[in-house]
Amino acid sequence: MRGILVVISGPSGAGKGTVCRALIKSLPDVHLSVSATTRQARAGEIDHVHYYFITRTEFQERIARREMLEWADVYGDFYGTPREPVDRILNQGRDVILEIDVQGALQIREQMPEAVLVFLSPPSFTELERRLRKRGTDTDERIGQRLDWAHRELRSFPSYDYVVINDRVEAAVEKIVAVIVAEKCRTKRFQLLDSNPYT
Amino acid sequence: MRGILVVISGPSGAGKGTVCRALIKSLPDVHLSVSATTRQARAGEIDHVHYYFITRTEFQERIARREMLEWADVYGDFYGTPREPVDRILNQGRDVILEIDVQGALQIREQMPEAVLVFLSPPSFTELERRLRKRGTDTDERIGQRLDWAHRELRSFPSYDYVVINDRVEAAVEKIVAVIVAEKCRTKRFQLLDSNPYT
Repeated sequence: MRGILVVISGPSGAGKGTVCRALIKSLPDVHLSVSATTRQARAGEIDHVHYYFITRTEFQERIARREMLEWADVYGDFYGTPREPVDRILNQGRDVILEIDVQGALQIREQMPEAVLVFLSPPSFTELERRLRKRGTDTDERIGQRLDWAHRELRSFPSYDYVVINDRVEAAVEKIVAVIVAEKCRTKRFQLLDSNPYT
Repeated sequence: MRGILVVISGPSGAGKGTVCRALIKSLPDVHLSVSATTRQARAGEIDHVHYYFITRTEFQERIARREMLEWADVYGDFYGTPREPVDRILNQGRDVILEIDVQGALQIREQMPEAVLVFLSPPSFTELERRLRKRGTDTDERIGQRLDWAHRELRSFPSYDYVVINDRVEAAVEKIVAVIVAEKCRTKRFQLLDSNPYT
């Protein structure tokens, strides 16, 4: 059976990175998709592990060749998901976790309707602002932009399948694990099973 | 938030009773709905605990008063679910587990579209027959009828939300617990939440 593509998305500061790292520890068989980006690597980020850091020209060529499952221009930097590795791993029967922003998730919804979209939500806007400030990588102006953006992104949540409020990382991870287990039991997936004892 | 009505259904011999008893132990807050029936109590069955054992006349009066959420005539015996206790407990925010046959589950699908329907399936027909014989309560003829019935009931599984294959009770229970956790995260339920931080 083909694996499930699980998209973990939500506003900047919702805790996507922390939750996805903890999720991968809970589910070692699951593959965390690596995104491509044109932005500069932050301290500690490793090429091919955290991101594929590629040039703007290379990124645009990949878009033209339709090699990107989704892509977005975020504050002038390109982010995207190379399609080939995701398809290959799903066809091996392994699940793939995609950590992407809201723009990207909505493109996935169109390109892969069978994907499972999880909206990771901070418990409140107050907490979202606290997390963005604690991160220490953004100016006040950028934090203001991100909060405005989060307000707008929230309107997209009805396009998602699930909403997980990230008040505690462990609790959020448990809920996402349950979503994956439940999705594998959904009738629509069962109908495709060769192992259905009744057909 | 209103609780979730989880219907555990499937052919006779799928292991509904065993799985539901184990499920209630895992989730002590969940309420197991008690069915009404006109059949004779089996050894060890207690009135008001395992079933409400009522007369045929009383059952028919309740149907006429629309006090049954679902009911079925199974081999000449009536089985049904009184509506009032289910509604009351759901409105208290508690989840309710209903262990019923396939005819009943399909009526629930119509009467409560928001219910979560789980089709509990034996791993194979060979195993189903083995379980029915092991139970020791049925004649060969009745076992044959139950197997024929199971073949027909299988055609209903696309009306269910989830399929759980009961090869090991513990594994089946874990999957149903995951289904309940995941269903509480579904976007459609989240939209009804007063605690949505973004509205």
